[in-house]
Amino acid sequence: MNTWPVPAPDLPADVHPALAATAEAAARAYGGARAEFTRAQLREEVADGADGTPTMRVDAIVEAAIAEAARAAGANLLSEEAGFLDHGSAATLVIDPVDGSANAATGVPLSCFAGALVVDDQPVEALTVWFDTGRAWHARAGEPTPFRTTGRKVLKGANVCLLRPKRGTEEAWLRVADQADRVRVLCTTCLETMLVAEGAVDAFADPGSDTHRLMDLIAALVTVPAAGGVLLDLHGRPLTFDLDLTRRWSGIAAATPELADELIAVIRG
Amino acid sequence: MNTWPVPAPDLPADVHPALAATAEAAARAYGGARAEFTRAQLREEVADGADGTPTMRVDAIVEAAIAEAARAAGANLLSEEAGFLDHGSAATLVIDPVDGSANAATGVPLSCFAGALVVDDQPVEALTVWFDTGRAWHARAGEPTPFRTTGRKVLKGANVCLLRPKRGTEEAWLRVADQADRVRVLCTTCLETMLVAEGAVDAFADPGSDTHRLMDLIAALVTVPAAGGVLLDLHGRPLTFDLDLTRRWSGIAAATPELADELIAVIRG
Repeated sequence: MNTWPVPAPDLPADVHPALAATAEAAARAYGGARAEFTRAQLREEVADGADGTPTMRVDAIVEAAIAEAARAAGANLLSEEAGFLDHGSAATLVIDPVDGSANAATGVPLSCFAGALVVDDQPVEALTVWFDTGRAWHARAGEPTPFRTTGRKVLKGANVCLLRPKRGTEEAWLRVADQADRVRVLCTTCLETMLVAEGAVDAFADPGSDTHRLMDLIAALVTVPAAGGVLLDLHGRPLTFDLDLTRRWSGIAAATPELADELIAVIRG
Repeated sequence: MNTWPVPAPDLPADVHPALAATAEAAARAYGGARAEFTRAQLREEVADGADGTPTMRVDAIVEAAIAEAARAAGANLLSEEAGFLDHGSAATLVIDPVDGSANAATGVPLSCFAGALVVDDQPVEALTVWFDTGRAWHARAGEPTPFRTTGRKVLKGANVCLLRPKRGTEEAWLRVADQADRVRVLCTTCLETMLVAEGAVDAFADPGSDTHRLMDLIAALVTVPAAGGVLLDLHGRPLTFDLDLTRRWSGIAAATPELADELIAVIRG
């Protein structure tokens, strides 16, 4: 059993009510799930999600709480397990209920809520909340955030986070690790991209495994540029709102466009 | 600037006063340093430590606070920057003031205080405190802890943490990553070994880079066995108290002896 508490999110006052309500519901649900279930139970696969990947119990519990909060707030919801829930609104919440599900289930204290508010087809506001501390990163599209990226332009000597190496990406992974000063693998893209946004690391990259779905990247798509950085796909595919959850990207978040370009060049070899 | 708070350590009531005082002094000093200095200033190398590696400003600040607290508590101190400070006691605190210095300096929220109380030459009690949350893991040699390892015996499908790959260890690193279900690199051995102790991951390993000094492993040496696991060196070198800070090990922490043996076999190829 994981007995550490899950605090209430520490949210700025001006977060959109639907994002705030879903983040708060997610933290409550995750805290309750940790108190009720063992690590093995939280990790158990209980269904297949709308995105085609298995749904762990921890994902199912948190997403149910988010769906209820979204319905109460009158916003549509696009979520990895349930897919699209149409509540008749022009506003859609695109949410990863538990980013870093494997961490969240086993008790590695690195998992988060991440979501964006999409009006028509434009992401306008994003919120990421680190469950284990309640720390929140909030941004509006086109408005500068108080936190900033490092501004670093070169990979040599950089601090980077990487998605774990998967079959076929090992060589690209090692090429990045070899050039960087430090490489980390936290297994939570949404939290790692927020570390890029706040200037704790210089970049995050999926070295070509095409693991990311829209909800893994949409909060970063708003937040990282608002903090001075960039969010791109390794192969230049546009990151656009889409109800098709089978689409995948290899996300690259970097402090500057120059660093993103160099990362992409090194990964593509 | 890293503006997130550093809370006071959340310590059990029965921690030895000298360990408690140094952990509390470390958290206060680190919190003060984050409030006073930029990330670049915290990372700046200001001296060469007694262990032969450069000392970042963040290390120097926290160690100074620990040295003062150890002196006030009447215990000797063995620390990575200052070396051995003899205060005429039979008890010596062996402390890593800031484990995960690079994280602590740049703002990746994964760094900790880790120390053990050594009486004559035996480690008898250990304390690890994760700075960003105040979470503490406490153990006495030979006494079971309330938290337990996962009990996992096989690497295939395991959740592991690894030291980042360094020159010459890349192949061993990839062999472990390939067999494990998930691999993480948090860049803080003391915190990663506590995740083994509390059952959040199955194992942690340095795949042969001989990076660890005594103070990187001594808290785990007490805590992981007390939680049901093992702490070994990759090459079977005994982990013993020694004032010689040039000694190095490749630490392996695992939920069970069987898993440690398999990890060692896979790393050694």
